[in-house]
Amino acid sequence: MKHTIKFQPDNITVTVDKGENLLTAAANAGVYIHAYCGGDGVCGKCKVIVNEGTVRSDKANLSQEDWDKGYRLACLSSVQSDLVVTIPEMTTKSGKALKRKPKTTRTISARSLETLIGTWEVDPPVTKLYLELPPPTLEDNISDMQRVMRGIQKVLPDSLEPTYDHPELIKLLPRALRDSDWKITLLLLHGRGSDEPFRIIDVEAGDTTSRLYGLAIDIGTTTCSGVLVDLNTGKVISEASGYNGQISYGEDVISRIIYAGRPGGLNALQDKVVATINTIIDEICRDMIISPADISYIMAAGNTVMSHLLLGLDPKYIREAPYVPSVSMFPLTKAAGLGIQAHPSVRLFLYPCIASYVGGDIVAGVHACQMAKSDRVSLFIDIGTNGEIVVGNREWMVCAACSAGPAFEGGGIKYGMRASNGAIENFQIHPESYEPMIVTIGRIKPSGICGSGLISIVSELLEAGVIDQQGKFNRTLDHPRIREGRDGWEYVLAWGQDSLIGEDIVITEVDLDNLMRAKGAMYAGYQTLLQSVGLTFDDLDRVILAGNFGAYIDLERAICIGLLPDVDRDRFYYLGNASMLGCQISITDVKRFRERVTVRQLMTNMELSENPEFMSYYMASLFLPHTDMSLFPSVREKLSADPGS
Amino acid sequence: MKHTIKFQPDNITVTVDKGENLLTAAANAGVYIHAYCGGDGVCGKCKVIVNEGTVRSDKANLSQEDWDKGYRLACLSSVQSDLVVTIPEMTTKSGKALKRKPKTTRTISARSLETLIGTWEVDPPVTKLYLELPPPTLEDNISDMQRVMRGIQKVLPDSLEPTYDHPELIKLLPRALRDSDWKITLLLLHGRGSDEPFRIIDVEAGDTTSRLYGLAIDIGTTTCSGVLVDLNTGKVISEASGYNGQISYGEDVISRIIYAGRPGGLNALQDKVVATINTIIDEICRDMIISPADISYIMAAGNTVMSHLLLGLDPKYIREAPYVPSVSMFPLTKAAGLGIQAHPSVRLFLYPCIASYVGGDIVAGVHACQMAKSDRVSLFIDIGTNGEIVVGNREWMVCAACSAGPAFEGGGIKYGMRASNGAIENFQIHPESYEPMIVTIGRIKPSGICGSGLISIVSELLEAGVIDQQGKFNRTLDHPRIREGRDGWEYVLAWGQDSLIGEDIVITEVDLDNLMRAKGAMYAGYQTLLQSVGLTFDDLDRVILAGNFGAYIDLERAICIGLLPDVDRDRFYYLGNASMLGCQISITDVKRFRERVTVRQLMTNMELSENPEFMSYYMASLFLPHTDMSLFPSVREKLSADPGS
Repeated sequence: MKHTIKFQPDNITVTVDKGENLLTAAANAGVYIHAYCGGDGVCGKCKVIVNEGTVRSDKANLSQEDWDKGYRLACLSSVQSDLVVTIPEMTTKSGKALKRKPKTTRTISARSLETLIGTWEVDPPVTKLYLELPPPTLEDNISDMQRVMRGIQKVLPDSLEPTYDHPELIKLLPRALRDSDWKITLLLLHGRGSDEPFRIIDVEAGDTTSRLYGLAIDIGTTTCSGVLVDLNTGKVISEASGYNGQISYGEDVISRIIYAGRPGGLNALQDKVVATINTIIDEICRDMIISPADISYIMAAGNTVMSHLLLGLDPKYIREAPYVPSVSMFPLTKAAGLGIQAHPSVRLFLYPCIASYVGGDIVAGVHACQMAKSDRVSLFIDIGTNGEIVVGNREWMVCAACSAGPAFEGGGIKYGMRASNGAIENFQIHPESYEPMIVTIGRIKPSGICGSGLISIVSELLEAGVIDQQGKFNRTLDHPRIREGRDGWEYVLAWGQDSLIGEDIVITEVDLDNLMRAKGAMYAGYQTLLQSVGLTFDDLDRVILAGNFGAYIDLERAICIGLLPDVDRDRFYYLGNASMLGCQISITDVKRFRERVTVRQLMTNMELSENPEFMSYYMASLFLPHTDMSLFPSVREKLSADPGS
Repeated sequence: MKHTIKFQPDNITVTVDKGENLLTAAANAGVYIHAYCGGDGVCGKCKVIVNEGTVRSDKANLSQEDWDKGYRLACLSSVQSDLVVTIPEMTTKSGKALKRKPKTTRTISARSLETLIGTWEVDPPVTKLYLELPPPTLEDNISDMQRVMRGIQKVLPDSLEPTYDHPELIKLLPRALRDSDWKITLLLLHGRGSDEPFRIIDVEAGDTTSRLYGLAIDIGTTTCSGVLVDLNTGKVISEASGYNGQISYGEDVISRIIYAGRPGGLNALQDKVVATINTIIDEICRDMIISPADISYIMAAGNTVMSHLLLGLDPKYIREAPYVPSVSMFPLTKAAGLGIQAHPSVRLFLYPCIASYVGGDIVAGVHACQMAKSDRVSLFIDIGTNGEIVVGNREWMVCAACSAGPAFEGGGIKYGMRASNGAIENFQIHPESYEPMIVTIGRIKPSGICGSGLISIVSELLEAGVIDQQGKFNRTLDHPRIREGRDGWEYVLAWGQDSLIGEDIVITEVDLDNLMRAKGAMYAGYQTLLQSVGLTFDDLDRVILAGNFGAYIDLERAICIGLLPDVDRDRFYYLGNASMLGCQISITDVKRFRERVTVRQLMTNMELSENPEFMSYYMASLFLPHTDMSLFPSVREKLSADPGS
C-alpha cells in the first residue's frame, strides 16, 4: 500500500510504501533533515511536525512538550497514512534562521528489471518422466534399459534415443523396475542443443514427478547465495546465502590466487567454497524439508577466479600478464565429484567466462538482461572491486574489466565498510550550516561508510562547495567538521559520541583520491569500449546496472561524481543480482539456457590494463566529475548554479 | 614354404607347410596310419617308408634295421621337401594283410575369413593431433583451452568445436602448454556419429603422435585375450591371453551368476576379470616396452554375463526366466573407473549384446564378418557351451542361443577335456581291425578328448559301423576295444599303458548321448531360425563358423554327425576368434566401428528355451546325423555305401 507525503515548507511530494521510515523517505526525496546519529533516535535532531495524517512513532528522548506540539523524531516514525510533514527551519547557534535551503536532490533509482528480462517459460533443462512399463515375458525379454528406452519412445515418439553414462544408473535400474512393479520415474537431462538426445541421469521407483528442484548459485568472492526453484512451477521457494568461506584466506581474488599457490592452498580454497555451498544447500533443504538428493540440477555463476577455484583449477596464470585463465567454457561437472552434497548424477553447470577478469557472473548477467537479443545498444555495468563493463547488442559485444579498486566496497576508504548495519548509506549536507543528515543501514548509530553512502557524501560535499572538483577540501571554510586531521584534510561525518565506534567518523582527501581513481577507472572503461566500436554515450539506448550496488545507487549523485555517464535518466535500469538471475532463468527455461552460448560467443574482451587509450581516458577522469565537463552537462549546470538556490 | 606329399599305396596327395608333422599331415589327408600313442613316438606303430624326399626324423625306439630300410615313425618326422611316403599294409595278428582299406576322409576346413571381412582402414576412433600454438599476449589472452580450440580449428577447419569432460584435462593443460613451449599433442576421441564433435581426452607436452595404441580384448568365460594394435599403422604388435580369473568361482556363466548372488560375490567376480585384463595389459606393455598409459582406447567384447560382471552389474535376472539383462547397450566407460590400469581418461568400449545369451562377442563376430552388409543370406554359428546362431543379411537378422551343453568343450564327456596338450584332436579307425589312429594336441600321449576329437571319433565310429545312428554300440562286434564298461558300452581309444593318465581312455554311450544332445540343439536352432524367416538350408549362401573351434573343425565329420548342415562345402567359412576380430577392426577403423550400431539394430533375438518348434526340431535331431536323412544326403550316401570300399 502506497502513501503520499508532502514535505513542507518546500512542498515536495513523494510516494512511499506504508510503514516506510520517515527519515529514509525524506532522505530519498532529497529533503534535508538535520540528523547525525544515523537514525538511532539518540541525537534527537530530526524533529518534524506531522500536520496531517498518522505516523507510528516512538517518543524516545523527545520532551512531552514537543510531543504534544506534534513534533515527532523522523527517524523513529513510520508512515501509516498520507501525510503532510513540516520540517522546522534550522537555526544558527545564535538562534537566527538559516537562509540557504538545501537543494532537493531526490534519489533517482534506475528502472527495474522487468522490462528488460522479459518472461521465461517453465521448461527446465532437467525433466522427469513417469513410465508404466509392461513387465518382460519370454516373447518380450529385451534388456531392462531397452524396455525403458522403448517406454520413452512411446511417450516421446519424436525424440532421439536418450543416452546415459552414469554407471550407477544401470546398477539401480533392475531393482527400481522390480520394486515398483515396472513403474518408474526417470530424471532426464536435455542435450546441449535441441537436436541432441536426452541423457538419463537417474531413475526412481514409482511416480516422483512432483519433486523436481533446481538450485541457482551465485558464487561471489565475498558472498555466496543460493536460490531453490521448484522446476514444476518455476517459482523460487527458498533462498539462503552466506559469506564465501574462502574469505579467511583473503578478501579479494588476488589474495586468493596468491593463497592458491601455497602448498595445499588450492585444495583448501576449493574445500572452503564447497563447504559454503553445502551450507547453503543444507539451509535450503532444512527450510523446505527436502533432501539434497531431490535437487536435480545446479547452475552456478562466479567470476573467473571463483570458477577456477570451485573446479580445483590453478588460477595462477590469471594473475600474471597476459592474464590467461585455464579454461573459459567450463565442462558440465558432476556436483558430487566436487564434494558438493548432491545426488551422484546431478550436474553442476558453471557459466562460462570471457577472460580472466570478465567472469561467468557477467556472462550470466548479460544473459539475464537479454541485451544480446536486442537491436538496441546497451552498456552493462557491474561495479565492484573489479568493475566489469559490457557494451553491445545482438550483433556485437565488447567487454572489459577495470581495476576500479575496492572503494565502492569500503576498501581504501578510512572508515569504509561493507553495506551492513551501521553503514552510512545516505547523506545530505546543509548548504549553510554544513551539518549532515545521515541515514545508516538499520538506522543505528553510524560505524562507517558503504559504497552508496560514499557516493552521497562526495556528491553532496561537491555540490555544497565543501570540496572542489579536484577532490580537495575548501580550506577557507571555517567549520568544526572541516578540519586537518592526521591524514590531511577531512570532514567529520559523525562525532565520536554519535558514532557506534566511539570515534569521529570522517572522510579524508585520501579517501576522495581513492574514490576518484575507482570511478575514473570505470568511466575510462566506458569511454575506451565505446571508442573501440566508434560510438559515444549518445548512442547508448540503455545503461544496465548489475549487482546489488546498482539497486541502491542514486543516479544523480553517481553521475555527479562521474561514476555513471550523464545520459537521460530513464535510460538506466538495474538488474539486482544479475548473475543469480541468469542462473535462475537458465535453470527454469532450457531455451533461454541454450542462448547462453550465443551470448558468450558475442562477447569480445578488451584488455585495459596496458591500453594507452584507457590510460589517457583514465587520467582525464581523475576529477569530479571529469576534466571534460562537456561530458557532464547536467552536473556542469548544477555546479555553476548557486548551491543554495 | 609348401611341400607335396604323396601317400602310397592309395596315391593321395596333399600339400602342407614345410616342417609339418607327417602323422598330422596323414591324419588331415584322411590317410590312416595305425598310431595309438597320440604321436609321442612310444607306441612305435606309425612306421612309414619315405620313398622320396627328406624328412627330419627322430629314431627313438625304431630298430636300426627298420631305420636303415627307410622306415620312419610318422609322428616323429617333419616334412622337409616334397615326399613320396608309403604306408605299410596293416596285418592281422595272424600276419594276414587286412583287406578293407580305410576310406579317405580328408579333413576339409571351412574357407578362411579374408573373403568375408574385406579390408579396413587405419582411421581409428581415437586420434592424436599435434599443435604448435602461439603463446598468449595481452592482445590475445584467451583462455588456454580456447587457444587449443582455435589451434584445432586451424588444422581441422571443417570440424565442430571439440568437447571435453575430463576434469583432470583442464588441470593438466596449463602446465603442458607452458612446459612444452606451447607445443602439445591432443588425444581426441571421435564422436559417436560423424556429425558429432571430437572429445579431447588427454593432452601431452610435445609431439607424441608416434605413440598411439589401441587394445582389443576378448573376454571369454574361460579365456581372455588381448591384442595391441599400433593405431598409426593398424598392425597388431603384441598379443597376450590368460584364463579368466573368475574360473575359480565356476566354470560356466551359470555358476558365475550364482556366485555373483553371494555376499561380495559380484565384486569378487568383477575384481577377478579386471585383474585378468590387467595381467594381459602388463604382459603386452612389458613385451612392447610401452606404458599402460600409452594405450588410448580399449575395445572389448564378451558374452552378456561377462559384460555385466566386468561393469559390476548384477547378472541375476539373466538366469531367471524371462532372462532379462540389465542393459544391452553398454555405456562408454572410463577403463580406470573399473580398476583397469589405464590412463584415467581412456575409454573402454564394450560391444552391445542382443539378449541374455546372445552377447557382445556374437555382435562383434557378426560385425567382423560383414554379414550385415551383404545381400546374401548367412548362417553365423558359434559353437560352445551355449551355441549362438545368427541368420540374416543386410536387411534382417534373427539370432538365438541354444543350450547345447558343454560337450564340445569337454563337459559331460567321460574323458572330455579342453583343447590343450594331450587332447585327442584327430581320429581314424581302421574299418577291419577297428584299431585307432590317434593324433593329440602336442603329439604327446593322450589324456582325453577335445571337441574336434570327439567329432572325429563319433563320425569314424559311425561310418565304421561301430555305433549305429542312435549312438549305440554294435553289440555284435567282437573286439577287445569294444566292451561293456562300468558306464555301459564303450570303445577304448587308448589303453592305459599308452595314455598319459595311466588308465584306459574310452568313449561311452553316455558320451554319445551328450554329444547328440549338444549337436541336436545346434541343428534344431538352425532349423527354428530358418523356419521363422521362411527359409531352408538351401537358401543359405554362407555358413560362417566363429570361435577357435570353427577353425579346427573337419566339415565332413561335423556334417556326418549332424552338427553342421549338409550344404555345399564351399559355402563354409571360418572366422577364428570373431569376437576379437570385431574389436580389432573397430579399434582400427572408426567407420567400421560406427557400423556396429546397424548390426546390433538388425539383430532380433528368438528365445528357444520354451519354443515348441525348437523342441520338436530338437527331438528329431537326437540321431546321427538326423532322423530325417533327407536333410543329410551326403551322409546318407556315405552310410549306405560299403564302409570298407
